[in-house]
Amino acid sequence: MLSGTPPSIKRLIEELKRLPGIGDRNAERLAFHVLGAPAERAEALARALVMMKKTVRDCRRCYNLTEEDLCGICRDPNRTEGILCIVQTARDLLAIEGTGQYKGRYHVLKGVLSPMRGIGPEDLTVQALLARIGEEGIKEVILATNLNVEGEATASYLLAALKPLGVKVSRIARGIPIGGSLEHADAVTLGLAIDGRKEL
Amino acid sequence: MLSGTPPSIKRLIEELKRLPGIGDRNAERLAFHVLGAPAERAEALARALVMMKKTVRDCRRCYNLTEEDLCGICRDPNRTEGILCIVQTARDLLAIEGTGQYKGRYHVLKGVLSPMRGIGPEDLTVQALLARIGEEGIKEVILATNLNVEGEATASYLLAALKPLGVKVSRIARGIPIGGSLEHADAVTLGLAIDGRKEL
Repeated sequence: MLSGTPPSIKRLIEELKRLPGIGDRNAERLAFHVLGAPAERAEALARALVMMKKTVRDCRRCYNLTEEDLCGICRDPNRTEGILCIVQTARDLLAIEGTGQYKGRYHVLKGVLSPMRGIGPEDLTVQALLARIGEEGIKEVILATNLNVEGEATASYLLAALKPLGVKVSRIARGIPIGGSLEHADAVTLGLAIDGRKEL
Repeated sequence: MLSGTPPSIKRLIEELKRLPGIGDRNAERLAFHVLGAPAERAEALARALVMMKKTVRDCRRCYNLTEEDLCGICRDPNRTEGILCIVQTARDLLAIEGTGQYKGRYHVLKGVLSPMRGIGPEDLTVQALLARIGEEGIKEVILATNLNVEGEATASYLLAALKPLGVKVSRIARGIPIGGSLEHADAVTLGLAIDGRKEL
């Protein structure tokens, strides 16, 4: 259906199709919607895209997303000290925050161990995590990596690395279905999983 | 899940949610995808959005989308002269082009008559259409507005306006879609399909 479409519409459709879950028809629909909407909307969306990429970076301490040097959680004086929740991604952190069940601080691994994909501890923020244990007097660590093979392997690796440092290590409860990922879990299930964590 | 999210991510999610068919979870997923993708992708998408809104306009003659004065179809010397296909939107034009069944020219109404929404002939490109009949020596007009109440009303209105000009006016066939089954067709469609039967 695209023969005869002006090049700039085709270009937008091509860019939209690169987004996850946006197929041909969907990209077309979105492009024609933007075409029919006020120019301010397209400009606001374009600006939001570029601004986000420009301003968002990793928190210097926990690798959460932030627009400052330290993220909102690291800057918050009311969080419980001495406890860290380890997550794969900043999205997982936000999912846990959404439960309201956890008041400590976080550490974002920025991925998961995956020999298959050639991702080792040095590709994650593991070194920074281990350094934080002593520096911040961490007494307890909750491993909240995904409940799939890679997440479990990463949790095992971290358990082995953390135990010698004398910290209590727990794993979120298997309230989340095996094979599922944190970002798709509902808040209640996720909250129960944190509540029911088991010492390893 | 958005408490603690940097403002620029929230802003992008808000803009994405304004798009049709993009809900909360979807907007979040898209925003975090962009966050993880190279900055060039976000910039290319942003540029494509703004460029499209800037460069695309209506064809001076048929109101199809174009980046020039006349659209690609109006500029094409190989289209059959003397026949016009009337469509509601440029998207409908592209859908018909996609069939490869039609080689004449088009006229885009830019909407449909709707007393309910206060849209009359003066809000569409009807005047320009009527002017084209004489100017371009149009002999035949195909009414390809939608097969719903407003599309049918618009087709009736155009039939009445075009007939006195001495042009042959036809309406796209009503019937059962290819692959459709009789038992799922509504009674009106089925009635029209029987009414419009073709001798084999």
